[in-house]
Amino acid sequence: MDTKNSAAEGPELAEPYLREVLGTAGLAVEYVRAEGNTLYRRGEDGGEIPVADFAGGYGSVLLGHNHPDLVACARELLDAGTPVHAQFSRHPYANRLAAELNRIVHRELGSTEPYFAIFANTGAEAVEAAVKHAELDRVLRIAALREELERSADRARAAVAAGEAELPARVRTRFGIPTGAGTAAALAELTARLTAENTARLNRPPLFLALEGGFHGKLGLSVQLTHNAAYRTPFQALAAQARFVPRDRPEVLKEIHAQERGVVHALEVTDGHVDVMEREFPVFCAFLVEPIQGEGGIRVLGAEFAEAIQQFCAETDVPLIVDEIQSGMGRTGTLLASAQTGLVGDYYTLAKTLGGGLAKTSVMLVREARYRREFEIVHSSTFAKDSFSCTIALKVLELLEADGGAGYRRAVERGAALRAVLESVRADFPEVVKEVRGKGLMLGLEFHDQSGSASESVRSLAVSGLFGYFLAGHLLHVHGVRTFPTASAVETLRFEPSVQVSDEEIAQLEAGLRDVCRLLRDGDGTRLAGAVAG
Amino acid sequence: MDTKNSAAEGPELAEPYLREVLGTAGLAVEYVRAEGNTLYRRGEDGGEIPVADFAGGYGSVLLGHNHPDLVACARELLDAGTPVHAQFSRHPYANRLAAELNRIVHRELGSTEPYFAIFANTGAEAVEAAVKHAELDRVLRIAALREELERSADRARAAVAAGEAELPARVRTRFGIPTGAGTAAALAELTARLTAENTARLNRPPLFLALEGGFHGKLGLSVQLTHNAAYRTPFQALAAQARFVPRDRPEVLKEIHAQERGVVHALEVTDGHVDVMEREFPVFCAFLVEPIQGEGGIRVLGAEFAEAIQQFCAETDVPLIVDEIQSGMGRTGTLLASAQTGLVGDYYTLAKTLGGGLAKTSVMLVREARYRREFEIVHSSTFAKDSFSCTIALKVLELLEADGGAGYRRAVERGAALRAVLESVRADFPEVVKEVRGKGLMLGLEFHDQSGSASESVRSLAVSGLFGYFLAGHLLHVHGVRTFPTASAVETLRFEPSVQVSDEEIAQLEAGLRDVCRLLRDGDGTRLAGAVAG
Repeated sequence: MDTKNSAAEGPELAEPYLREVLGTAGLAVEYVRAEGNTLYRRGEDGGEIPVADFAGGYGSVLLGHNHPDLVACARELLDAGTPVHAQFSRHPYANRLAAELNRIVHRELGSTEPYFAIFANTGAEAVEAAVKHAELDRVLRIAALREELERSADRARAAVAAGEAELPARVRTRFGIPTGAGTAAALAELTARLTAENTARLNRPPLFLALEGGFHGKLGLSVQLTHNAAYRTPFQALAAQARFVPRDRPEVLKEIHAQERGVVHALEVTDGHVDVMEREFPVFCAFLVEPIQGEGGIRVLGAEFAEAIQQFCAETDVPLIVDEIQSGMGRTGTLLASAQTGLVGDYYTLAKTLGGGLAKTSVMLVREARYRREFEIVHSSTFAKDSFSCTIALKVLELLEADGGAGYRRAVERGAALRAVLESVRADFPEVVKEVRGKGLMLGLEFHDQSGSASESVRSLAVSGLFGYFLAGHLLHVHGVRTFPTASAVETLRFEPSVQVSDEEIAQLEAGLRDVCRLLRDGDGTRLAGAVAG
Repeated sequence: MDTKNSAAEGPELAEPYLREVLGTAGLAVEYVRAEGNTLYRRGEDGGEIPVADFAGGYGSVLLGHNHPDLVACARELLDAGTPVHAQFSRHPYANRLAAELNRIVHRELGSTEPYFAIFANTGAEAVEAAVKHAELDRVLRIAALREELERSADRARAAVAAGEAELPARVRTRFGIPTGAGTAAALAELTARLTAENTARLNRPPLFLALEGGFHGKLGLSVQLTHNAAYRTPFQALAAQARFVPRDRPEVLKEIHAQERGVVHALEVTDGHVDVMEREFPVFCAFLVEPIQGEGGIRVLGAEFAEAIQQFCAETDVPLIVDEIQSGMGRTGTLLASAQTGLVGDYYTLAKTLGGGLAKTSVMLVREARYRREFEIVHSSTFAKDSFSCTIALKVLELLEADGGAGYRRAVERGAALRAVLESVRADFPEVVKEVRGKGLMLGLEFHDQSGSASESVRSLAVSGLFGYFLAGHLLHVHGVRTFPTASAVETLRFEPSVQVSDEEIAQLEAGLRDVCRLLRDGDGTRLAGAVAG
């Protein structure tokens, strides 16, 4: 039933292969309703079967599916005939949302510098907007540097023409300018040589820095910042490239910088001598970091490494984009998960729960010190900054902030309850469970690699490339629990339920996980895969 | 009032500079409600002031703002607790939508080949998905060619080893292989040389073809396919590049192809001789075309040029992406505007009205012959393919198709009424209006360049870079009509109202345009700009 399409529905043209793959693991079920922390599918008898949702829309429904206050807000907007499509006009709701985001960010960072808001529609679009802004900034900084190089050459020329400066022999020798030539001619030759060399260097394509295991989207450019090779490499000729830094290896970061940093030569007149000085220019467009890697296996950025990144960015003037698309919006107890590690971004990206599970919206925030207002003229989106999604997003923030931040506290409390259960499973099955990771309601449980299992049936699951998906299929069909592996680390199951997740649902998950662990320990891969038919 | 933010609203952080620019032209007004073809703003007395909307959400509200059937559909989905966030499950609504799109496309193209549907959230995302798919296809075709080159080298080697083939002197001479060397050694050297050369050539970055004046989005990659230099060039180091073809110049298309085409060398054994043959490989990832350029000034692709493009793509095996984001969804009387010119795409992109002005959704369609199902595994989006927007989109199609296509007919009929008015204005003000262009409800009116006007006040508007925006401000404040210039051609005003536009609204626009024309003719730029304060 799950993998076949009924004739009445006509041909299957919306990703039939994906459905086939999901069907292999028993995941091609249809959901008919969603409420709170529960998705419902239809049983053979036509009745609803509840499924406790620990996938949580990949982070989009922290407040729960169809939260009554958000649904009410959506209804009010529809009733009021909200002007969704009023591009290029005043957008007070967008300004209110930007102001509210600033108020919370300032509280969490203990700072007052404004962050300007550029709205988009999806997480990936927010990343692309941030990266485009960072590139505009880089291009403008390079243009300023070019002008400065020209001015310094002019100054040197004027000083030589006025007989006020010489071109020392050591400079001539260093750049291979004949020592016999007159100062003006020698300087002209030196300037021509440096200009050609500088121009070539300044035209180098920008480089990005990102972390191994990082995920920043799948659009043409953003997918090149996403580490997963299967997603990235087929498309690598389409966009600028990133150097990926292994987690917790600041020394590699320094190596990459040393290899890739860009230097041009400027002329300088000091004490009657024309000298050639090195000037750094921005090769690195931006450094992208998730405070907690989602698709990379729910991995928390360590405080020490975060500090090293912060310091590196400050020293090298590389703008830091903190990607909070999955970790942010209160999931770990603060709007910005990074605020808890003390990491401060030049840019932030937020999406997913920002739309409350109903609207599609995202935002990139950029600090005033980096802000280029020209960006507002060259970047836009027909669907972005609309009254519907901005108003829903304001309501989401209101729900999180209400009662002195009860929403955040609930995420922490529910997260702790869930984590305790995951840890207890790990303690009881150390031979099967490798690690429990994460923060708040963004948790992961990694299984030991089972490709060396004594059981052939378990080995075949392990090497299928769909290991976590088979476990998810079993949990769904036998235990009524929805979860998924993280996209780039299929040995890790993700748990990102809503704050509405109940103790009963957590107990249901625990029972399921203990069952899975027992089957793996006992080498019963057949029963794990067999649930698929259910 | 318009350009200042009241203190109560707090700091302005959502694109204040854009608002300032819009304010200059009197366009920074706030809309509070939208219904049918009307947007409402609030007057000083608190009452609503209706504005006849000829901007139409940049093409997103062909059926009108907050269409009652679509609002009802949205309410039903909210009431039913639709499972918006049910990623990686069965999505029958997405399949139904894909099937319905296919049914209509097949009817319009007179074909039966299925088009597979990949859903996204915005027009730009659909373009990026199409381009990513085309690149995956290109990369896989190149990989197949690499294997074929290896196999042909193996066959040549085997034939030589078996004494069944010689390496003729003309081949040795052509590639500078010593004539004295033994056949096996000479072939080894030739193979090594060709392999190195082939590898370098096959690694060339892909090129895109697009039209001058074309617009395909503003994300990292798609903005490089958008011709407007102000949008594109600051970001050109971020993504692969396009060669832009002037409209109606197929000979330039051929020149570009001749300059850029890619050729590798394959070994072939014929009649006991190893020969070197040229093999074409895909350098061009895709050719992007809008059937009617929207942002480029409402310019209809001519039938002759369309045929030349179609033929070029067929002969060179370059996939054709027909971008119907602004022109499609019934705006010109058919789902695909291109169907009327007989242009057939390998890919189509649809967005804007697909979401009915309420949902954010888009789709790229790719024909079966080009389809790579692997794409479903490597590409995805958290927000895409959701129950809410797919169901709204299905309702949009239902509304267009109802009563034997009354929606399409209405677009044609209203378009004709609007066009008649624009043509009459042009006839009466030939010294001011240069041309009326477009099709159905996608019309443009181009003014003559006024930078040589005898009037200083008109000249100053003309050289402000905001010419069309000033006219729009006047039309808004004095005539209660909303329109905008096209983004990349500010001398052209766009008219993309909904099918609900009334005769009265068209008359209102006519009065406004006649007033604008009179003021331009009479050199009264001051009054044109003065309305801003209103």
